[in-house]
Amino acid sequence: MFDVIAFDADDTLWHNESLFQETETKFEELVSKYSAGEAGNFRQRLFETEMRNIRYFGYGVKSFTLSMVETAIEITDGQIPAAEIGQLIALGKAMLDQPVQLLDQVEATVAELAADSYRLMVITKGDLLHQQNKVNQSGLTDYFSHIEVVSEKDEPTYQTILRKYNISPRQFLMIGNSVKSDVLPVVALGGRAVHIPYHTTWQHELVADHHSNGFDRLEHIGQLPQYLRSHYI
Amino acid sequence: MFDVIAFDADDTLWHNESLFQETETKFEELVSKYSAGEAGNFRQRLFETEMRNIRYFGYGVKSFTLSMVETAIEITDGQIPAAEIGQLIALGKAMLDQPVQLLDQVEATVAELAADSYRLMVITKGDLLHQQNKVNQSGLTDYFSHIEVVSEKDEPTYQTILRKYNISPRQFLMIGNSVKSDVLPVVALGGRAVHIPYHTTWQHELVADHHSNGFDRLEHIGQLPQYLRSHYI
Repeated sequence: MFDVIAFDADDTLWHNESLFQETETKFEELVSKYSAGEAGNFRQRLFETEMRNIRYFGYGVKSFTLSMVETAIEITDGQIPAAEIGQLIALGKAMLDQPVQLLDQVEATVAELAADSYRLMVITKGDLLHQQNKVNQSGLTDYFSHIEVVSEKDEPTYQTILRKYNISPRQFLMIGNSVKSDVLPVVALGGRAVHIPYHTTWQHELVADHHSNGFDRLEHIGQLPQYLRSHYI
Repeated sequence: MFDVIAFDADDTLWHNESLFQETETKFEELVSKYSAGEAGNFRQRLFETEMRNIRYFGYGVKSFTLSMVETAIEITDGQIPAAEIGQLIALGKAMLDQPVQLLDQVEATVAELAADSYRLMVITKGDLLHQQNKVNQSGLTDYFSHIEVVSEKDEPTYQTILRKYNISPRQFLMIGNSVKSDVLPVVALGGRAVHIPYHTTWQHELVADHHSNGFDRLEHIGQLPQYLRSHYI
């Protein structure tokens, strides 16, 4: 039995990537009015700007918004009017204002695991304030002992968290939609992880075929309590 | 004797506000080329945008950069060219790239307190990634047991940190340059605080005259070890 079960948040507890993709569609529509280029290429240009900017801005909506502005100026050779740039910032604010939409069966599952006396936590990357606001809005706060917002989900980050809360890796289970961020670094540290794919994955989180060594995959978070009963009790 | 001494970071361990003010001067110069308004008013307009945006963006350089862009568009009635907006984003990146400049005597003081077996931590607000990068660059990491980046420095935030690390308020001393963020909420919880003013204070951190009840003020961080010896041993 695990001591601690930690959940990723975006696209594991609530919808997120779909909101970014909807905003990217609006970005394309807006920018294509001022550019002779191929609209199909604009998302890729935006993605490249985001990757280049990660070392400055990190992850999250503010970073994404700054990258939208920067890419729009580049793609249009500075021809985009300032008012339209203001629209891009408004798109970012609309994302931050978007109510949290829990994924199906999340609330019942988290409640059931908490009732089974697992210690639950959230480990999520992105903007500190936005992630905290989403946890607060989710209605799930009371189920979680700790909320950790981190700037990167790699081995050193998980190591720091395990040490901070004095958790043995063998008693730690991570649940998330990203093999790269939620599964592989945890497994590398000797912890366990369950991958629950979201219907779409951000390009940055994709990894080459990984043969599912050392971790399991579920179709749906609602399967988690049964999975734990049949595998770990 | 205290169990834990926590330091604010910006303008307590290293220079920060002066960098914002230098950038505001560049912002004024850039925007005034496209606006008929009074340049002296531009900083105030920027400050108002920042305050309006805190609920979306929180604190830090990314938030400040987005607010510079938004204010520039407003002040110039959309007349500022996109290329100049690109310059504002470049100003933000330059701030994030700025090497950490420790305040005078910080390193010796922190080293001395660590040698005196105080448990030291950092509690700072702002962009998660930027604050972590600054701590890493500061060369001080090994002196601190914990680094906490928070989205607001109020009573509930300090309460959460004290509980998380199982620290009694009476054994907790906070050191910082902001009476509002570093002193008053800690004193309200029953902790102790020492105010060490920076030569300039962000408008948002100013509070009305507070009569120094329940906390002390030092001119310089280098006075801290002597202060602790004479007051608390």
